[in-house]
Amino acid sequence: MVEFLEHVSLEKAWSLILERVSPVSRGEWVDILSSGPVLRRVLAEDIVSLENLPHYPASAVDGYALRSADTSRASSTNPRVFSEGHYLWANTGSMVGRPFDSVVMVEDTSLEGDTLKVARPLAQGENIRPEGEDVARGQVVARKGDPLSSFNIPLLIASGNPRVLVLSLPRSIFIPTGDEIIPALKWVEEKIRTGDQVPETNSHMLKGIFSEWGYPLDIHDLLPDDGKLIKEALERAICSYDLVMIGAGTAKGKRDHSAEVIRSVADPIFRGVRMKPGRPVIAGISGNIPVVALPGFPMSALVAAWTVVFPMLSRLCGEKDATDLSKAIGGCKKIETRLLKHYSSQQGVCEWLRLKCGEIDGTRFSWPLSSGASSMFSIADADGFALVDDSTLEIPKGSSLQVWMKRNLDWEKRLVYQGSNDPAIDRLVSFVRDHGGDLAIRSVGSLGGLAAISRGEGHMASCHLLDPETGTYNDSYIMKFPDSSDWRRIKLFKREQGFLVQKGNPRGIRSAKDLSKGGVFFINRQPGAGTRVLFDHLLKEAGIEPAAINGYNNVAVTHLEASARISNGSADATLGIRAAAEAFGNDFVPVTEEQFEIVIPGRFHSHPGVALFLEALVDKKWRSVVQGLGGYTWTN
Amino acid sequence: MVEFLEHVSLEKAWSLILERVSPVSRGEWVDILSSGPVLRRVLAEDIVSLENLPHYPASAVDGYALRSADTSRASSTNPRVFSEGHYLWANTGSMVGRPFDSVVMVEDTSLEGDTLKVARPLAQGENIRPEGEDVARGQVVARKGDPLSSFNIPLLIASGNPRVLVLSLPRSIFIPTGDEIIPALKWVEEKIRTGDQVPETNSHMLKGIFSEWGYPLDIHDLLPDDGKLIKEALERAICSYDLVMIGAGTAKGKRDHSAEVIRSVADPIFRGVRMKPGRPVIAGISGNIPVVALPGFPMSALVAAWTVVFPMLSRLCGEKDATDLSKAIGGCKKIETRLLKHYSSQQGVCEWLRLKCGEIDGTRFSWPLSSGASSMFSIADADGFALVDDSTLEIPKGSSLQVWMKRNLDWEKRLVYQGSNDPAIDRLVSFVRDHGGDLAIRSVGSLGGLAAISRGEGHMASCHLLDPETGTYNDSYIMKFPDSSDWRRIKLFKREQGFLVQKGNPRGIRSAKDLSKGGVFFINRQPGAGTRVLFDHLLKEAGIEPAAINGYNNVAVTHLEASARISNGSADATLGIRAAAEAFGNDFVPVTEEQFEIVIPGRFHSHPGVALFLEALVDKKWRSVVQGLGGYTWTN
Repeated sequence: MVEFLEHVSLEKAWSLILERVSPVSRGEWVDILSSGPVLRRVLAEDIVSLENLPHYPASAVDGYALRSADTSRASSTNPRVFSEGHYLWANTGSMVGRPFDSVVMVEDTSLEGDTLKVARPLAQGENIRPEGEDVARGQVVARKGDPLSSFNIPLLIASGNPRVLVLSLPRSIFIPTGDEIIPALKWVEEKIRTGDQVPETNSHMLKGIFSEWGYPLDIHDLLPDDGKLIKEALERAICSYDLVMIGAGTAKGKRDHSAEVIRSVADPIFRGVRMKPGRPVIAGISGNIPVVALPGFPMSALVAAWTVVFPMLSRLCGEKDATDLSKAIGGCKKIETRLLKHYSSQQGVCEWLRLKCGEIDGTRFSWPLSSGASSMFSIADADGFALVDDSTLEIPKGSSLQVWMKRNLDWEKRLVYQGSNDPAIDRLVSFVRDHGGDLAIRSVGSLGGLAAISRGEGHMASCHLLDPETGTYNDSYIMKFPDSSDWRRIKLFKREQGFLVQKGNPRGIRSAKDLSKGGVFFINRQPGAGTRVLFDHLLKEAGIEPAAINGYNNVAVTHLEASARISNGSADATLGIRAAAEAFGNDFVPVTEEQFEIVIPGRFHSHPGVALFLEALVDKKWRSVVQGLGGYTWTN
Repeated sequence: MVEFLEHVSLEKAWSLILERVSPVSRGEWVDILSSGPVLRRVLAEDIVSLENLPHYPASAVDGYALRSADTSRASSTNPRVFSEGHYLWANTGSMVGRPFDSVVMVEDTSLEGDTLKVARPLAQGENIRPEGEDVARGQVVARKGDPLSSFNIPLLIASGNPRVLVLSLPRSIFIPTGDEIIPALKWVEEKIRTGDQVPETNSHMLKGIFSEWGYPLDIHDLLPDDGKLIKEALERAICSYDLVMIGAGTAKGKRDHSAEVIRSVADPIFRGVRMKPGRPVIAGISGNIPVVALPGFPMSALVAAWTVVFPMLSRLCGEKDATDLSKAIGGCKKIETRLLKHYSSQQGVCEWLRLKCGEIDGTRFSWPLSSGASSMFSIADADGFALVDDSTLEIPKGSSLQVWMKRNLDWEKRLVYQGSNDPAIDRLVSFVRDHGGDLAIRSVGSLGGLAAISRGEGHMASCHLLDPETGTYNDSYIMKFPDSSDWRRIKLFKREQGFLVQKGNPRGIRSAKDLSKGGVFFINRQPGAGTRVLFDHLLKEAGIEPAAINGYNNVAVTHLEASARISNGSADATLGIRAAAEAFGNDFVPVTEEQFEIVIPGRFHSHPGVALFLEALVDKKWRSVVQGLGGYTWTN
């Protein structure tokens, strides 16, 4: 019995697909005038004109039809004279029949009564478009393999070919499975969430991808993790479709049936591709019908669709570039960038990166969003994607990285902002865009941001760093950077910091001291975050060792994420801003008000994006949104 | 009264559009789960998550949930032991609640009865994805201005935002006009053609273009050249649409009402843009509703849509790159080519070129298709388009030309074929493609083809040239080229040449002599064509001067075009091949059989496209098609 090839390289997967999947050339007739959308459908045969275009000798100008022989030696000083019947008015497009064989432009004539004077000689055929000049009957007007487009549809109509034979599109179906999955509609309609339930979103992602590729896709009803049901659905699907996808069940756990089910109805091809994410993808073939199991996590499913499903579909359609990832990812541009930060890749597997990009000091940089296969946000937020090959281990800062862009950036105006996480700044992005600029935010904490701009890795930073010695904010931290003397500092607002606790404060937390009580579980922020600096100061002030705090090493990287965990009861307290407490209806125990400021190195003052950013900072609409978040006081 | 600015430059037209047309931001709600297609729709506001994703602390692996504190110092030699109730099985994605705060992978454990042994210590939070890790409630998940895509739709659903406010698409309508125009459906259904009638195809072209741009378009009923009716339709359209286009009526003839009608209902902006074709485009604005009259010829309408309508729509939508022609032409790639032939452009106007392309000896070349604004074939046949700026006059061979490609070429395999026009070779192209190659044909006549390959302007040529001295074909002509000694010659087939005359031969034409009879109108072929060489020989043999032939200077560039003109009675006779006579049901008076051969310079024998071309030459399916054309005898 044939078994799956396990953990193949991407190249091997591609060569197996090209070898095992054959082109299917099935044709169908479409009517350009009455069918639905026909654009991009591919002609299955040469189309031959049934008409001459034009179908009559047509005047190319407004003027008079004449016999050219009668005009010889005509000039403005010695015009030829024609009486009625020896000339004929012709509009542009009018038929010009024998005995006339040319048309004089009206500008080269004068009419006195019925007498026409012609001031120049005409050549035979002059200003006449003879029949068949554009296209003659019998001429090939569109070729097998040409897609229907706005460029050839008019010609197909005019040449008498409104009905054409096109290649049928491959019919595909996606069968989502999983006990823990609930239909998207149910997810959005039912507001009560039970643990383990996850909305079925992969079918919606695939619908979009297939639509962008130009292929139809049907979605099967969601099935539970039941091998028998999945097998029955697969057997039925193979009878009606050219390609079948199963959602999830690709791991090797108790509830994972995909490999076994595929093996039972199709010839196994491979199981596992050496890439990350997307590794667990499984492929088989039944006759010439590819059967694929896509991993369940969004990013895994996405890259499996790009690398495995797209080549199969392209191959079914007889496309030449079956493994062209630029096409698979959506016909996007591939650009060269430099890595903004060192990146460690896993050797032996290709690694997919989701990247943000920006141009700093004339160099286009990219940096990976640090997220797992389960993250949907990083897919939506990324500017582009890259594939690091399987031989790469360490990629030093500044290394070249080719990025498939999913959006067009205005590189000249985009600012790279590194620093403290803040919900108000997150809301600023759209206002910067409204003013014609653009902003990419990297939340690396207050200290991280200052260090980044000092190393030339950003256009601006933000910070809120308490100096316990002086009780002042930011000054002493900024002054430590030798190049900070020309940094422009914008003291934007003050934020209320305090303890976020569950509604009603069931643990009775009033100060840092209360956190060391038994059973209290804390969430901290990452090292380098201004809020963590503040927390360490509070602990020191209270004489508490970090080790006495249950959860000191348990970190969240944003205020909102920390607040979410309080709200759900996963933890009891965190230090954070009032806006984050209000977003979740958590209680807030005020501790202090801190100065949040933005820092811009001098050489960027003339950056075209900075002026637009500064406009957005004083945009009343943004400030009103920020007021609504709670806990902010403007200081600029 | 404000008047149209006449004959503005393209830059001026653009600056007027940007100045006069304002963004319209009207929003509408779409439901991602139940509306029709929503891809590419642009968000009208920031979208904030209503959910934490995940909404519970979820295991990231298959394994056992534990309290991390219980695992300290566990190792494979000294595993920690857990009795029932102190651990809990967790599937990937399962909820992990307190008191558990970490998950150990099943691979790092062993289970004996109910006793679990754990071989390594766990950190707090290890293998747990905390609630809100991906997205926290209150976080911006998609921003104003982002298009809906397969990248953000899953997140919008999961974050509880299936209904989103998007920018409304501008509503546009096209009103075709013209007494001589008939609806496309009538054109294809009625087989009887009367002079002057032209099918209405521009609406179908515009439908396609708008669809590719992502905008809807309504089509108005066809109107006659009646200023009153057109004005009424325009007035109604302005009440319901954001942009209105009138088809044709843009010239200054008696039947041209567009300028006057636009002036009567809108503020005039410009009339005439200094470009060719497309010059007569007219623009006005009523409130903020642009009103455009597009010229009637297909290429004119097309470039007016790209240069005037697209910027208006982009501007209405608030797009930044309102005048990005790459986007207007269809998001195509712009590539650099070298001109294969000298080109003379008209100074003072921008000129649009339709180009074919090919790579010869490592250089990517392009050459313009020589066609007027009325040609539909050249639009369909072109590989791409270029815009020559208005300051350019003469463009020498080899000059750089930027081409917007409308198809992806396989440059390495495409062959550039120059030479004699022949219907069998025209049919060969699809078979070359079937074999994996590609062929671009340039019909320049037999002599033109040989000269072209001698100058390095093609991969192959074809010829059928009679040497009257010897009665042999091609040899003496080819030997005149000094580099011809290594040319590979493929004597492909013989073709029957003769006089094409109307059915029944009403003029009684049996030989060249009969052509000099009074009233007989001849169509010749262009200088350099093998058929013309033969005709000159026949005249010389019969002792007839060219001047004695009525129509000697009246030329058609293909056999089929010449035959079309015989068939319609525009002319009485031409010299050509039997296949062309048969395509039109003309009579054929045989004169001779000529050797048609293909010539390939030695350095191209190893060209990857040549092997595929040679395969196609012996493809039985092609040869069977050629047999059906008539008059061919294989000699290879």
